[in-house]
Amino acid sequence: MKGVSILGSTGSIGCNTLKVVRHLGDIRVTAMAAGRNMAKFAEQIAEFKPDLVSCTDEICAEQLERELHERNAPAPQIELGESGLVNVATHPEAETVVSATVGAVGFVPTLRAIEAGKRIALANKETLVMAGELMTDAARRSGAEILPVDSEHNAIHQCLRGERRDEVKRLILTASGGPFRTKTKEEIARATREQALNHPNWKMGEKITIDSATLMNKGLEVIEAKWLFGFDTDQISVIVHPQSVVHSMVEMVDGSIIAQLGVTDMKHPIQYALTWPDRKPNVLEPLNIGKLSELTFEEPDLERFPCLGLAYEALKAGGTMPAVLNAANEVAVQAFLDGKISLDRIAVINESVMREHTPTAANSLEDVVAADEWARMRGIIKLGKSVAAN
Amino acid sequence: MKGVSILGSTGSIGCNTLKVVRHLGDIRVTAMAAGRNMAKFAEQIAEFKPDLVSCTDEICAEQLERELHERNAPAPQIELGESGLVNVATHPEAETVVSATVGAVGFVPTLRAIEAGKRIALANKETLVMAGELMTDAARRSGAEILPVDSEHNAIHQCLRGERRDEVKRLILTASGGPFRTKTKEEIARATREQALNHPNWKMGEKITIDSATLMNKGLEVIEAKWLFGFDTDQISVIVHPQSVVHSMVEMVDGSIIAQLGVTDMKHPIQYALTWPDRKPNVLEPLNIGKLSELTFEEPDLERFPCLGLAYEALKAGGTMPAVLNAANEVAVQAFLDGKISLDRIAVINESVMREHTPTAANSLEDVVAADEWARMRGIIKLGKSVAAN
Repeated sequence: MKGVSILGSTGSIGCNTLKVVRHLGDIRVTAMAAGRNMAKFAEQIAEFKPDLVSCTDEICAEQLERELHERNAPAPQIELGESGLVNVATHPEAETVVSATVGAVGFVPTLRAIEAGKRIALANKETLVMAGELMTDAARRSGAEILPVDSEHNAIHQCLRGERRDEVKRLILTASGGPFRTKTKEEIARATREQALNHPNWKMGEKITIDSATLMNKGLEVIEAKWLFGFDTDQISVIVHPQSVVHSMVEMVDGSIIAQLGVTDMKHPIQYALTWPDRKPNVLEPLNIGKLSELTFEEPDLERFPCLGLAYEALKAGGTMPAVLNAANEVAVQAFLDGKISLDRIAVINESVMREHTPTAANSLEDVVAADEWARMRGIIKLGKSVAAN
Repeated sequence: MKGVSILGSTGSIGCNTLKVVRHLGDIRVTAMAAGRNMAKFAEQIAEFKPDLVSCTDEICAEQLERELHERNAPAPQIELGESGLVNVATHPEAETVVSATVGAVGFVPTLRAIEAGKRIALANKETLVMAGELMTDAARRSGAEILPVDSEHNAIHQCLRGERRDEVKRLILTASGGPFRTKTKEEIARATREQALNHPNWKMGEKITIDSATLMNKGLEVIEAKWLFGFDTDQISVIVHPQSVVHSMVEMVDGSIIAQLGVTDMKHPIQYALTWPDRKPNVLEPLNIGKLSELTFEEPDLERFPCLGLAYEALKAGGTMPAVLNAANEVAVQAFLDGKISLDRIAVINESVMREHTPTAANSLEDVVAADEWARMRGIIKLGKSVAAN
């Protein structure tokens, strides 16, 4: 039995990972970490019986013990906070670590798992956005494989099978365009929380759904792609494809384009990452090609979706700039979710925090964490001003 | 310099091959064969200076010498007929043989090239249709690689790079649907030669263009795919995709679909076959994904296009049956091109010749040639009756 640890088991990716584990039948969950939803976490623990679990703090741990007790489930070892996450991520019996926490919290545990040489099924894109160089350097040293769980990067991973790097012309990430693809700038500015959370194709967590509405998600994916696959920034492009059937493409030097198509269900890329280099039958209804009515493609509009352009800028600026953009964006998205700012303010805050930042090398955990904290602080200050100004 | 021999240099694939050779710059044309167009052949010989050429007969050879003399081009060794084709196909300095003659005439020379261990860039699909088992057995023995130049099989070859055979669920050949995709059965029956030759996406020779109009071409490709890639008949499916942007696809056991997209220009698959396993920049404008208006897919209609169903039947019947279908079809298509029968009669003749045939093993050249000749004769007899009945 292969051992798997899951960081963020109660989130969307975590739950889907457990469905895949249940389906595959040859994987043991050795350790799991979850943030807040202790009722669901207790259920998962009762079913999958990991050796070690971790949650946010003492309050969560007490609640978890209560929930486990109510289910007559034996309590595993319970750890807390970042050190708990790190212990889950480096559990000695885990060959693969599914890194599926939301936001920057997954950063340190994922780095530790990479240093420990684990295979990383990476859904936490902030990890590579914040510290792509650090992570990929660590992976090179330890021999850890990083397998993307994002459907786009997973598609590119599939398209690159059997291809030579020096024969790749560019990666083409597809973007659904989100719920506001056909909306005007003014309509986007006035969008409600509900409208922004109503993604046309994918059911995902709240943070990533908002990022999809602003195309920041695609921007973060451009940064992620650079680190995952090691191509130059100008070799990574984005195309809007509203049907989300083509999950991404690779253009080769001879003009050939290799694309990966599939259903819009995260269980596919999760299973691919868990079973690679093998492919195994999965639980999903296969895509019915004959019933695809039409597939369309269009260039992204950077004026209505400035966050995508900011990501390219951050990548070109390099060093700590992507971490700064990521941190500012987390703060801004949370403010939008909390009803404090309008959707169009996210890009404004991101950009103005970036404008204040002079990027430095992101060679260490400290560099990245410092940039992250600085940007969060600047973001919060700007939010205060922004809210006061409203 | 890699040496290349070209069978059928004045045809559509042959001319495109020479354009690719001109572009690549590191290939020498060692030998060429052409059937009828001696003016063009002389031009090609003057430019590419092969050691050996072959044409149909004495009359062609005389004309060719005249044409070469007019151009002040030195005359290479000129051979004739099938033995000439075989000598071109097995020229000692040719590493790769582009097999691009139309119809059954390419059969023996291609087999000899395979037996000689050449790499075959295969555009002559009749070769595998008539004698897939014989050809692939010979290739296994000699170590010859067969690289498909058909855009669909070339796409599948690309999609299979880096994939494991036992993880392939099915091959999905795309079909443009031809000029009569949206036409009624009656309209197809009344179609003129000009309408049938007016292919919406591809510029090709006359025989293959008519086969595209009846979907016989796709049927022959199904048979070809079986032999090229060695999958079961029920693992090969066809989907109509009128835009011909997706050149074909492979569905994996995990539901993932890998597709190859590109411009509709045969120079792409030709170059791929000549440079494989390398990819090199080509002369073509790359596909502009952002300008693709829409891609659509639909199941093929076997009632309006019965030739496709006949191909599956022939493949299931096995042995000499595919060769019989191929030969009957060549006769019927020529009769249509000559204005002797209506388009819908092609399927009728094909089917009725098949109904008369009891397939036997196709283990030798003689078996295949006998089946081919028998079917041509039956086709011609049926045509006589058919024309007499009109």
